[in-house]
Amino acid sequence: MGALQPPFRPPRRILMGPGPSDVSPRVLLAMARPTIGHLDPAFLALMDEIAEKLRVVFGSANEFTLPISGTGSAGMETALINLLEPGDTAIIGVNGVFGGRMAEVAQRAGARVITVEAEWGKPLDVDALVTTHRRHPDARLLGVVHAETSTGVLQPLDELGGYLNETETLFLVDAVTSLGGVPVEVDARRIDVAYSGTQKCLSVPPGLAPLTLSARAMERVRSRATKVQSWYLDLSLIGAYWGGERAYHHTAPINALYGLHEGLCAVLEEGVEARYERHSSLGVRLQESLEKRGLELLVEREYRLPQLTSIRVPAGVNDREFRRELLERYGIEIGGGLGPLAGQVWRVGLMGATCRSESVALFLSALDELLEGM
Amino acid sequence: MGALQPPFRPPRRILMGPGPSDVSPRVLLAMARPTIGHLDPAFLALMDEIAEKLRVVFGSANEFTLPISGTGSAGMETALINLLEPGDTAIIGVNGVFGGRMAEVAQRAGARVITVEAEWGKPLDVDALVTTHRRHPDARLLGVVHAETSTGVLQPLDELGGYLNETETLFLVDAVTSLGGVPVEVDARRIDVAYSGTQKCLSVPPGLAPLTLSARAMERVRSRATKVQSWYLDLSLIGAYWGGERAYHHTAPINALYGLHEGLCAVLEEGVEARYERHSSLGVRLQESLEKRGLELLVEREYRLPQLTSIRVPAGVNDREFRRELLERYGIEIGGGLGPLAGQVWRVGLMGATCRSESVALFLSALDELLEGM
Repeated sequence: MGALQPPFRPPRRILMGPGPSDVSPRVLLAMARPTIGHLDPAFLALMDEIAEKLRVVFGSANEFTLPISGTGSAGMETALINLLEPGDTAIIGVNGVFGGRMAEVAQRAGARVITVEAEWGKPLDVDALVTTHRRHPDARLLGVVHAETSTGVLQPLDELGGYLNETETLFLVDAVTSLGGVPVEVDARRIDVAYSGTQKCLSVPPGLAPLTLSARAMERVRSRATKVQSWYLDLSLIGAYWGGERAYHHTAPINALYGLHEGLCAVLEEGVEARYERHSSLGVRLQESLEKRGLELLVEREYRLPQLTSIRVPAGVNDREFRRELLERYGIEIGGGLGPLAGQVWRVGLMGATCRSESVALFLSALDELLEGM
Repeated sequence: MGALQPPFRPPRRILMGPGPSDVSPRVLLAMARPTIGHLDPAFLALMDEIAEKLRVVFGSANEFTLPISGTGSAGMETALINLLEPGDTAIIGVNGVFGGRMAEVAQRAGARVITVEAEWGKPLDVDALVTTHRRHPDARLLGVVHAETSTGVLQPLDELGGYLNETETLFLVDAVTSLGGVPVEVDARRIDVAYSGTQKCLSVPPGLAPLTLSARAMERVRSRATKVQSWYLDLSLIGAYWGGERAYHHTAPINALYGLHEGLCAVLEEGVEARYERHSSLGVRLQESLEKRGLELLVEREYRLPQLTSIRVPAGVNDREFRRELLERYGIEIGGGLGPLAGQVWRVGLMGATCRSESVALFLSALDELLEGM
């Protein structure tokens, strides 16, 4: 007999950072249901249900729609390495950490990466992207981040999707922080590939990456001349397990998928339109309340994500001390700035289950109290 | 308001296949604890505890010991792609599906792969591995599967570890099905790299891959001339989050890690020696009972895994029908054969929480009843 091991007791938190967001008890409890086998007929039926619900949330009829067994970054990597072969050109918009990560992952896949940059906190210039594409019409894909988690910028997609759909270039969209919070509308916007994470506006714990590919993107995967560099993230192999053949690839993360299923049930019960409206109205309420207090927001009104607000750290306030006090005294977690914005901004999330009027009220009250004392 | 979505109700099962194994209620409930942030001080402390407990189970003082955010196959891929650079030689022992998978992953990493094969159901010949290594002394690594999940073979490791430790070649061991069921003893056996999965003898749901690297393996990772092909599985980046710097890489799968922590608590409370003894004695009980019934086992006594037994499907018995009946009438899941053993064997697991005398008794009883009727 070994010694008794103390269990982990998570402190009480309200997750108002850039993700993970609060997870509702129904999702937490779903993950505690008994584990069954990854080839059990009941589990295979659950997989079909998950794919079907993901299609609704993505706004797509894409057959190839499934969650990758890894976090959002694994979704990004899966999308890029399956679509790119060494020597391919990829045009990547970079206006924050996650655009930069896309460029890095595409480079590791052997692609020639052309970046189109914008200042952090501003959207990418669609004309600049189109002009760059005209110079590189053979580009295999053009990728942008829909909701830049490092800044809080919402990228307009409609024009780009319409333009690229008339070309040979695939339109790839990072929807990690957008899915379930603002409309992604994969089919209407002519998006060929979109991936997300579970721990943002879906309010499911991190660990899975919903992914959807259009028929023309799948055609590209099937016509590769070289093997995908990763075996674990090879979509042909993963598709054979999720698709008709049910061929064993890797053991699916069963209980995490229980959680995703329950989280998607909650999204569909609320209704996606009602969910967007909730995020929109509470996001605006928070943002207006912050501006009324004289705080400066990083992003212009037109491009602000409702679910993630970047506030400039007020002059004279110590960033780390403020966030530590907020966590220790109020149990509120928010995010700091990344890269060039480190120490410059606070990132306040209102995603999924966190997005409720009590969160807004509590945060504003805590903010007032803390700033008064600093 | 959308329509009410029916929740998933997993059927009652006893998981006696090749994994996942039964998960105890204490682990299931641990996963339902509230999600906190991946940079929360309380979570960072939990990560340290998980690493420390993994060291005990691996039998290693290796500083670099952590769970990869993916299933066991992601652990395999992480180990191989971080240690191999294009053009490197890798010697891989293949006597089942997972040795074959290692060879495939190493090839995708650009390595020149030399395989040493053995019949499925037999261990690899250590002399053949050593002879092959003497012909390729510049090999970057030599990899074998400790517990071949596709056959139930236990591979002897001691001699190989001692031999390779005197060379420049790293010793890589797949411990997916062995960890927590039979001694892995990374340090005593001079293993440089070992990876595992959570859903076998640790009895935690699938989704994480414990991994440990020796100092000389880490030195190899640090002295790479090229970037690792995967950003998600790049150990330098992952190590910066799990190690001292706590630099954000990807969002850790928080609740899955709660489950792993609780599962490791259960292992340490039982004591690793007591756990090995439990697996050993019940495995032998099952195997002897099967032989008494005249059933033929695939693997010779000396190389049998206690936690996974391959039974030859008796002549005249329909493999699929038997397994379906076992599942539907008794709720017992066992595995079928893979590759050349498809339709030829049943794989019966007694791993972790499944490994109890009731499982053995129930399986034998169900087997008797079903075979009588066939």
